[in-house]
Amino acid sequence: MMVAVIGDGFCSADTALVAEEVGRLLAQKGAAVVCGGLGGVMEAACRGAKSAGGLTIGILPGTSRRDANPYVDIPIVTGMREARNVIVVSSAQSVIAVGGSFGTLSEIAHALKLGIPVVGLSSWELSKEGRDEPRGIIPAADPADAVHKALALAIE
Amino acid sequence: MMVAVIGDGFCSADTALVAEEVGRLLAQKGAAVVCGGLGGVMEAACRGAKSAGGLTIGILPGTSRRDANPYVDIPIVTGMREARNVIVVSSAQSVIAVGGSFGTLSEIAHALKLGIPVVGLSSWELSKEGRDEPRGIIPAADPADAVHKALALAIE
Amino acid sequence: MMVAVIGDGFCSADTALVAEEVGRLLAQKGAAVVCGGLGGVMEAACRGAKSAGGLTIGILPGTSRRDANPYVDIPIVTGMREARNVIVVSSAQSVIAVGGSFGTLSEIAHALKLGIPVVGLSSWELSKEGRDEPRGIIPAADPADAVHKALALAIE
Amino acid sequence: MMVAVIGDGFCSADTALVAEEVGRLLAQKGAAVVCGGLGGVMEAACRGAKSAGGLTIGILPGTSRRDANPYVDIPIVTGMREARNVIVVSSAQSVIAVGGSFGTLSEIAHALKLGIPVVGLSSWELSKEGRDEPRGIIPAADPADAVHKALALAIE
Repeated sequence: MMVAVIGDGFCSADTALVAEEVGRLLAQKGAAVVCGGLGGVMEAACRGAKSAGGLTIGILPGTSRRDANPYVDIPIVTGMREARNVIVVSSAQSVIAVGGSFGTLSEIAHALKLGIPVVGLSSWELSKEGRDEPRGIIPAADPADAVHKALALAIE
Repeated sequence: MMVAVIGDGFCSADTALVAEEVGRLLAQKGAAVVCGGLGGVMEAACRGAKSAGGLTIGILPGTSRRDANPYVDIPIVTGMREARNVIVVSSAQSVIAVGGSFGTLSEIAHALKLGIPVVGLSSWELSKEGRDEPRGIIPAADPADAVHKALALAIE
Repeated sequence: MMVAVIGDGFCSADTALVAEEVGRLLAQKGAAVVCGGLGGVMEAACRGAKSAGGLTIGILPGTSRRDANPYVDIPIVTGMREARNVIVVSSAQSVIAVGGSFGTLSEIAHALKLGIPVVGLSSWELSKEGRDEPRGIIPAADPADAVHKALALAIE
Repeated sequence: MMVAVIGDGFCSADTALVAEEVGRLLAQKGAAVVCGGLGGVMEAACRGAKSAGGLTIGILPGTSRRDANPYVDIPIVTGMREARNVIVVSSAQSVIAVGGSFGTLSEIAHALKLGIPVVGLSSWELSKEGRDEPRGIIPAADPADAVHKALALAIE
């Protein structure tokens, strides 16, 4: 099982705690964490996963494996900048968004386009003028709820 | 000047009329239309641009130039599927979103991440839990307003 | 008709003269020049094409349209570095390689993999241990010969 | 340590034996195998690595993790077709080419462009008209020699 954890490359200490707990719980359930490989939410999720003996994969936007945070086991070097966001979510069976800015929003949108479930923790709210989208981000109350939903909804 | 027009590959007749008018007005102002090269909003925008003697560029997701709608002058064949969305907006100096689903939302998010202005016609409303983003989609009242804003805000 | 001209971003004056003549002849025949948008062979080919009133498209590896050489009419901004090489050849109906180093070799290989004809002027010689490849680079004697062959062999 | 093994998606039984031995020896030395994730040389290298308890990563060109051969531990889903070749070699610290056609040649060229060492087993011979390239493919006599050279030359 591979689950993406997405969010800002810089984040508050509170958000990092949430992401770390998400990573730790995913690893405890035997799921590998895939992420963008950089700092902030990505690093916190990887740190949490490693604290529970999990496996972490970082899909990097730049051209050097040394860009990866120290908790990435497997750095994938794309050199494709923003386009690597597509690969992060395409490689996951479900996605957990922790907060996030526009880069995260692009990942959410790509995932929903591709039919990959997205669970949100304090993340984006999406609507189109005058109506809600039928599909969308599945809200979660806390890390345990997010991990539970991400594993239950994961595609094959 | 290059302006992206983004939106669904399948759309209502009303939405197509809006997109066609956007394309026509852009061409009248001397701006080239860049889009994803397929049907729906993309085709309508290209048709409008050609009706006013404009230039149209289609950044295709597939592997064949024959995927382009008949109003594309310059098909760019990426073979990169969703990742081509990044190229559509990166190649534009501003973006006009006409309606749109999750693919369009990914383009909006990539553009906003990259600092490229996005003008919306009946498109997405974005908020994060508890607060609005400071930057975001600039709403327009009609095609003329959208084209005016897109040209005024275009980056160099 | 779109023909790619590929080669080094830095090149000798002699090589630039060859590339410029290739661009000029392509434009005279009504073909648009697609290239990587940077200097050297790419710039020379674009300069030649513009001298004959042609259209030039530059598929850029970086994130700014300002990276394009001054003879590019339509800069396509990919931000995908080496991966943009795939788009250069995929968008062409045939390819003319003028000299070239490893980046050019990657474009030649992608083109031949995709079934897009490649004509070479002082470019790579390819063989596998113990045998020649049945398909491969079509050698040309001079720019006129290269353009003639590229137009004759172009795929639809 | 991550080493790419590249080659045809369909190959002879003899070539598969070579690739399998390469994968096995890499795993015995503690190196992870990164490849394009499909059949032929890629599958044989992964099978060899798994037979020695190694870790295997498949960078897939398509849109489904189910495209991966059964010996891939970590499927990375790019949806970017040929452009994924860049990611295969960029993610490796050195590359071993086993035979190979034009797709493999594109990977070799991208690796050499990026300064990533390439060791060849019955693979391409490269020359430019009238002169050899100073850098190029490092020939190996057999799988053990290839693995020895790939590990010795690997970049950080």
